[in-house]
Amino acid sequence: MKIAIVGGTGKEGRGIAARWLRAGHQVAIGSRDAVRASERAQELRGLTGGDAIGSDNLSAVSGAEVVLLAIPYAAHRATVQELRGALAGKVTIDITVPLLPPHVRRVHVPEGLAAALQTQAITEGTARVVAALHHVSSVHLATDHGIDCDVLACSDDEDALQTALSLIGDLGLRGIHAGPLANAVALEALTPVLLHINKHYKNAGVGLRITGL
Amino acid sequence: MKIAIVGGTGKEGRGIAARWLRAGHQVAIGSRDAVRASERAQELRGLTGGDAIGSDNLSAVSGAEVVLLAIPYAAHRATVQELRGALAGKVTIDITVPLLPPHVRRVHVPEGLAAALQTQAITEGTARVVAALHHVSSVHLATDHGIDCDVLACSDDEDALQTALSLIGDLGLRGIHAGPLANAVALEALTPVLLHINKHYKNAGVGLRITGL
Repeated sequence: MKIAIVGGTGKEGRGIAARWLRAGHQVAIGSRDAVRASERAQELRGLTGGDAIGSDNLSAVSGAEVVLLAIPYAAHRATVQELRGALAGKVTIDITVPLLPPHVRRVHVPEGLAAALQTQAITEGTARVVAALHHVSSVHLATDHGIDCDVLACSDDEDALQTALSLIGDLGLRGIHAGPLANAVALEALTPVLLHINKHYKNAGVGLRITGL
Repeated sequence: MKIAIVGGTGKEGRGIAARWLRAGHQVAIGSRDAVRASERAQELRGLTGGDAIGSDNLSAVSGAEVVLLAIPYAAHRATVQELRGALAGKVTIDITVPLLPPHVRRVHVPEGLAAALQTQAITEGTARVVAALHHVSSVHLATDHGIDCDVLACSDDEDALQTALSLIGDLGLRGIHAGPLANAVALEALTPVLLHINKHYKNAGVGLRITGL
C-alpha cells in the first residue's frame, strides 16, 4: 500500500517506516521540513532497499491511501487542521498520546477525551480514524527484531480498522480489535502508565500483552 | 491483616475474599444486607477454613485496617458517602470501573475522570485510596488457580500502595506500581476494552501482562 507517515522524521515514525518498507509497502515520509524528509527517505532506502520518498506533510498525504499520524501532541491540532482536506476518505492511523510535558508519566485527559477523537472531530468524520500503536516502544520499533507487545486498535470504521490491523501485522506485531473509537481514551491513557513503569522499575521498553486469547 | 470487603457478596469480592482467607488474612464481608453477608461469610469459612465474618458495610469497615471497595459503579458514590467517616486513615483499595450499562464495552469517563478519584474527593483525601484490580476476570478469581494477569495499582499514598501491592501478591498475582492516582483513569478505562476483546474474540476471561519487566 501507499502509506504516508506524517511526522515521519521522528523516532516512532522512522521505526515504523523501516518495518513497512521491509514488508514491501511504499512509504512517503512527511515532515514540516521537506528537505529533512527527503534525507530521511534516502536513509531508509539505504537501510531497507524499500520504496521511500520524502516531502512536506501535505504532499505525502495527498498521494497516499493510508496515513499514519506520528506527531507530538503539541503539534497535533494544528497539523490535523492543516491536513483535514487531504485526510478525507483516508484510513488515518493516529498514534498520538496526549502527554503534557514535563508530567509525561501521569495521565492527561485532553479536551475531547482523546487525541484520536479530536482528529475525528476536526475532520468532521471525513477521515477514517483508527487509534493504535500507542504502546510499542520506539526503542524496539527501531530494530528489526520481534517485539513482545500487542497493538490495541480501535475505530468506528470497521473496514479502516481491518486495514490497520493488517498493516500492524506487517510490522511484525499482533493487532487486536479494541472496539469503537471512544476506547481510544483507554489506549492513549495507558502510555503514561507504561512510561511510569519504565521509570519506576528502571526499564527502557516495557510493553503489553493481552492474555487468554 | 484485617480486611473489609465492601460489596463482598458480589462476584469479584467473593473470589478475592477466598484467596485472602487462604493466605491467612481476616476478612469481613460487608453488604447492605447483613444477613446475606453472614451467609456468605459462613460459606467462605466452609470453603477455605479461613477467618471470615459478615456484617453491614459500615461495621465491616469500622473494624478493618484495609478496605476493598467492590461495588457496582451505580452504587459507588452513595456507598463512599455513607462510609466516608469510617474510611478515614484506612488503606482503601478501589476496584470500581465506571461502566455505563448497557454500553459496558465502550469507555465511559465519569465526572472527576475516575471512580477512585471520586473516592478521594468524597473522602476529602482522608481515605488512603489505591486504584487496582480492574482487569482480573471474576471467572479466574473464583478459582484457586494461578491467573495469567498482572495487577496495575496506583495511588498518591506510597505506603498505602506498598500495602496494596503486598496484598495483591497474597492473591497469587503480580502487582505493578502504576504511579499516581491520576493514572486510575487509564486503569479503569481499560476494563471496557478487555470486555470488548472478550466479546469480539468469543473469550471469557482475557487479561493483561506487562512485558519487558
